[in-house]
Amino acid sequence: MIAQKTLRFRTRGRGTTEITTEVEQEVRASGVRTGACNLFLQHTSASLILCENADPSVRHDLELLLARLAPDGDAAYAHDTEGPDDMAAHARAVLTASSLTLPVGEGRLLLGTWQGVYLWEHRHAPHERRLVVTVSGDD
Amino acid sequence: MIAQKTLRFRTRGRGTTEITTEVEQEVRASGVRTGACNLFLQHTSASLILCENADPSVRHDLELLLARLAPDGDAAYAHDTEGPDDMAAHARAVLTASSLTLPVGEGRLLLGTWQGVYLWEHRHAPHERRLVVTVSGDD
Amino acid sequence: MIAQKTLRFRTRGRGTTEITTEVEQEVRASGVRTGACNLFLQHTSASLILCENADPSVRHDLELLLARLAPDGDAAYAHDTEGPDDMAAHARAVLTASSLTLPVGEGRLLLGTWQGVYLWEHRHAPHERRLVVTVSGDD
Repeated sequence: MIAQKTLRFRTRGRGTTEITTEVEQEVRASGVRTGACNLFLQHTSASLILCENADPSVRHDLELLLARLAPDGDAAYAHDTEGPDDMAAHARAVLTASSLTLPVGEGRLLLGTWQGVYLWEHRHAPHERRLVVTVSGDD
Repeated sequence: MIAQKTLRFRTRGRGTTEITTEVEQEVRASGVRTGACNLFLQHTSASLILCENADPSVRHDLELLLARLAPDGDAAYAHDTEGPDDMAAHARAVLTASSLTLPVGEGRLLLGTWQGVYLWEHRHAPHERRLVVTVSGDD
Repeated sequence: MIAQKTLRFRTRGRGTTEITTEVEQEVRASGVRTGACNLFLQHTSASLILCENADPSVRHDLELLLARLAPDGDAAYAHDTEGPDDMAAHARAVLTASSLTLPVGEGRLLLGTWQGVYLWEHRHAPHERRLVVTVSGDD
């Protein structure tokens, strides 16, 4: 059995938003007991990560590290159509993930104790982001 | 239902090649209407990314950034059997992806408007690269 | 058909451990002939990679590169609850992968000739790591 739905999230600019609860709800609604849940973000300047959900300073430090690896407004960029965070956002998305597949068991996501699913907005301006959730498996 | 096929791509050396059309064709041929399409590259010195497909300068800048993160011919590398781009290619593959799972809906890939699927060759010499496409779901 | 099992691996501290054989065994046990095998690590300070399995120096150099991208004990980190490798481990996990989906054909993993699946421990201390293996497809 397969259930598919597109969720929309309004971000507030660069930063992470936990979406575990919203994804869990789609898993429950699907009726799948054992299988997998694919998350796919239909954008190239935001991404998905699994991250420790206990201490927010982890996400603070991830911002700092990604800003080093793909700085805003780097003089070497050829692509800056939408501003100094445009190319940095694409690079940050490529270095993390647009697609995650999570196991489903006993009708719920089989995440680790400290794992949360996060949507990471890489642009400074707020955006609406679409996430396709596909749950497949046995009931 | 499941359809699986291995596609072969001849690269022209380091750089990105859009493969969205070839993957879309396998999705159509599979007869799957709702489900997922897994792409798996059977190599460790090339990779897969989702990237903006409008402005080629994005991929130009991604080359530049990856060359900073994993430089060719770094003096610290122990592994250089196949030349100065050998280890850099493995690292670039690990920092991006060898496996992508994309949602399928209404018989086609549910990509965002500006999303393309790219094969990224990380070696300087041309190579033949094998991509296993597995489409599964309901008709 | 779907088979799901949680494997446990005892790591010896920072470094890579090949787990291809253990994963292959679950694929065989599942009875799936054509489909996909999802690997999901229930942790945020260890990760999964596909890597060349011929020359161990590749993994040596990957350690070196990741240590540059996310150094232990960086003065800028806010998160250091569990020591200088705590935040570095989370960052290394985000830059690699917690979830991999591999194709299954003729009852086995369709890996490339030189591809191995590795569990990468990012903490310096040994840990027990749980990997959920979900094999789905047709018999």
